[in-house]
Amino acid sequence: MTASPRSGIVTVVTDFGTVDGYVGAVKGAVLAAAPFARVVDVTHDVGPQQIHEAAFALLVAAPLFPRGTVHLAVVDPGVGSSRRAVAIALGGGEAFLVGPDNGIFSYLLDDARSFECVSIDPSGFHGASPTFHGRDLFGPVAGRIAAGEDPAAFGKAVSDPVRLTPYREPIGARAGRVLHVDRFGNIVTSLRPVGTGFVVSVAGEIVRRRVLCYVELPAGELGWYVGSLGLIEMGIRNGSAAGRLGVPVGTAVELLPQ
Amino acid sequence: MTASPRSGIVTVVTDFGTVDGYVGAVKGAVLAAAPFARVVDVTHDVGPQQIHEAAFALLVAAPLFPRGTVHLAVVDPGVGSSRRAVAIALGGGEAFLVGPDNGIFSYLLDDARSFECVSIDPSGFHGASPTFHGRDLFGPVAGRIAAGEDPAAFGKAVSDPVRLTPYREPIGARAGRVLHVDRFGNIVTSLRPVGTGFVVSVAGEIVRRRVLCYVELPAGELGWYVGSLGLIEMGIRNGSAAGRLGVPVGTAVELLPQ
Amino acid sequence: MTASPRSGIVTVVTDFGTVDGYVGAVKGAVLAAAPFARVVDVTHDVGPQQIHEAAFALLVAAPLFPRGTVHLAVVDPGVGSSRRAVAIALGGGEAFLVGPDNGIFSYLLDDARSFECVSIDPSGFHGASPTFHGRDLFGPVAGRIAAGEDPAAFGKAVSDPVRLTPYREPIGARAGRVLHVDRFGNIVTSLRPVGTGFVVSVAGEIVRRRVLCYVELPAGELGWYVGSLGLIEMGIRNGSAAGRLGVPVGTAVELLPQ
Repeated sequence: MTASPRSGIVTVVTDFGTVDGYVGAVKGAVLAAAPFARVVDVTHDVGPQQIHEAAFALLVAAPLFPRGTVHLAVVDPGVGSSRRAVAIALGGGEAFLVGPDNGIFSYLLDDARSFECVSIDPSGFHGASPTFHGRDLFGPVAGRIAAGEDPAAFGKAVSDPVRLTPYREPIGARAGRVLHVDRFGNIVTSLRPVGTGFVVSVAGEIVRRRVLCYVELPAGELGWYVGSLGLIEMGIRNGSAAGRLGVPVGTAVELLPQ
Repeated sequence: MTASPRSGIVTVVTDFGTVDGYVGAVKGAVLAAAPFARVVDVTHDVGPQQIHEAAFALLVAAPLFPRGTVHLAVVDPGVGSSRRAVAIALGGGEAFLVGPDNGIFSYLLDDARSFECVSIDPSGFHGASPTFHGRDLFGPVAGRIAAGEDPAAFGKAVSDPVRLTPYREPIGARAGRVLHVDRFGNIVTSLRPVGTGFVVSVAGEIVRRRVLCYVELPAGELGWYVGSLGLIEMGIRNGSAAGRLGVPVGTAVELLPQ
Repeated sequence: MTASPRSGIVTVVTDFGTVDGYVGAVKGAVLAAAPFARVVDVTHDVGPQQIHEAAFALLVAAPLFPRGTVHLAVVDPGVGSSRRAVAIALGGGEAFLVGPDNGIFSYLLDDARSFECVSIDPSGFHGASPTFHGRDLFGPVAGRIAAGEDPAAFGKAVSDPVRLTPYREPIGARAGRVLHVDRFGNIVTSLRPVGTGFVVSVAGEIVRRRVLCYVELPAGELGWYVGSLGLIEMGIRNGSAAGRLGVPVGTAVELLPQ
């Protein structure tokens, strides 16, 4: 990967919140290793230790960035344990990923045509605080990769990074789950549309009205549409579908014949 | 506008919140089109679909940036409808604005000595998600303008971008409204000071004490002053004037003889 | 300091929150003075006027950034009063600090091997809003220092910037206080470990279990460890130690023989 170009951009996803200075410490560590990099905040408001949420934020944001961007993600309930730390090159250098090996990158891996993963050797990071690998290990590695170092230099290749349940069902699947609820209360499911002539069933309610966009709905009415990830979503115009339906992430969703 | 210089900076205002990855997707789309740009977050915590709040945030922040900065704003309740998308050059390239044509830029237009506006032709953005123009249309346009493209290249000139009620009353006006309430509970009005010898009336209360700054007030006492936008504001030292007076945005305010 | 190199990076700490455009205005003012700088948000969610919190965020974040970075901090309950404004060079140009002289930088000064401080002469900033020095004085000064100007150019040298109680106790001290509570509810104290064979006493509770990292704790159990600042911290795995113990910042903490 050494020869593949870098964009000079490092994105950051954490569950640190924005009240403390810890996010700043991580960004400083990146810049100490890559003094000319540009650091871009994706989110620091992932629910504490909610790996699935971070994986979803990465799925939404990372594919948009220019080739050679490094994505640093630190939601790390296992910090200080023997969980591995990984550095990943996607698709021959399309993007680089640095973080704990706990599934946080698995939605991006679902879509990658190929990847190379190393388990970062912690012995290169003497004196790292056992509680703050974001500052002492992940930040420096992300910065060094952004500055052109080869991820392969940080440890031994591994072929089995931790994978969560894939974010979307196979083509044609009619049973799936609620994958995410966004700020507006829109519900993102793991299902893709299967031809025409179906309705969406969730939590005992049938959502019949299909629209291109929630703006087509009368105010207060629930409908479904194909969202910006190509997945079936449900929303209410000027309202919260998740609030109305009371469906947390993980709730079963079905496509039924109309 | 092609020849006017760019600062290489793109600011971003949205109502997306910071929990999801959507803001990251927009910033990625900007950087994909302008790989050397620097993206600066202004706010993503505008109330959902509160166009006036976003217009106010732009009024507060945008005029400070260097000449040739692009301001991208996506508070877009009409996404997916026939509302126009606009790209605007202010004052011959002083600043560039990209977003939905719903009034979000109108406070900046109030102060511009001139502007040129085009309605962005969506046919140049095949396959744009009908629910996420921030990622698929506005972000790329903002990036391309930051990289030097002429806004005029994106569509036909229009002379009538949507305008909200102007953010400030005419010079000498004595009746206005609450324009904004800030984080500290300070109340920003649409009124400018009219000579001396007047008091401020709002919600049945008369605010008599004029100060240069709230630090001059005894703790807990209400006063008025000319704020950082040149508008009359009310505040309480170490307290919330808006909480005390219970005045939402839009409440009538009057200047009365002392 | 003129000759010492700059990193081109300006970090920003405020208590402005992220709902309004005021943070954007400050960042714009920095960039107007330093058009090629990169601005990095540390936090804008310091509690309103909580100088200690801002000082702690700076302590956590600032030391990580590359040499020659400017740290701008605006938590300024005294804006508009006669409180001084300061520009500080740490350690011969290791870092630069710009903000109100209210103790906000004192934790960084605690660790500096040397510093030079000037009281910024406000007469160079005619027309500055008395309520918004972040935009009209601190932002421009930070930008100009980032662009290479000498802090000494902004005013007369002073030797007595305001100092808070030092953030950590002397080596060997057995009595200290709660210095900070982080997002996860971990409690940071002002105490350093003193050999072995001691337990931590706080709010009538004895915390006996010492771990390297909270991951070693059984879920729900309280323990103490040396945190990422080298200070004694208390935490609960997957829980909030501060919530359990109910200890606000400032609570007395003691190290007792085991």
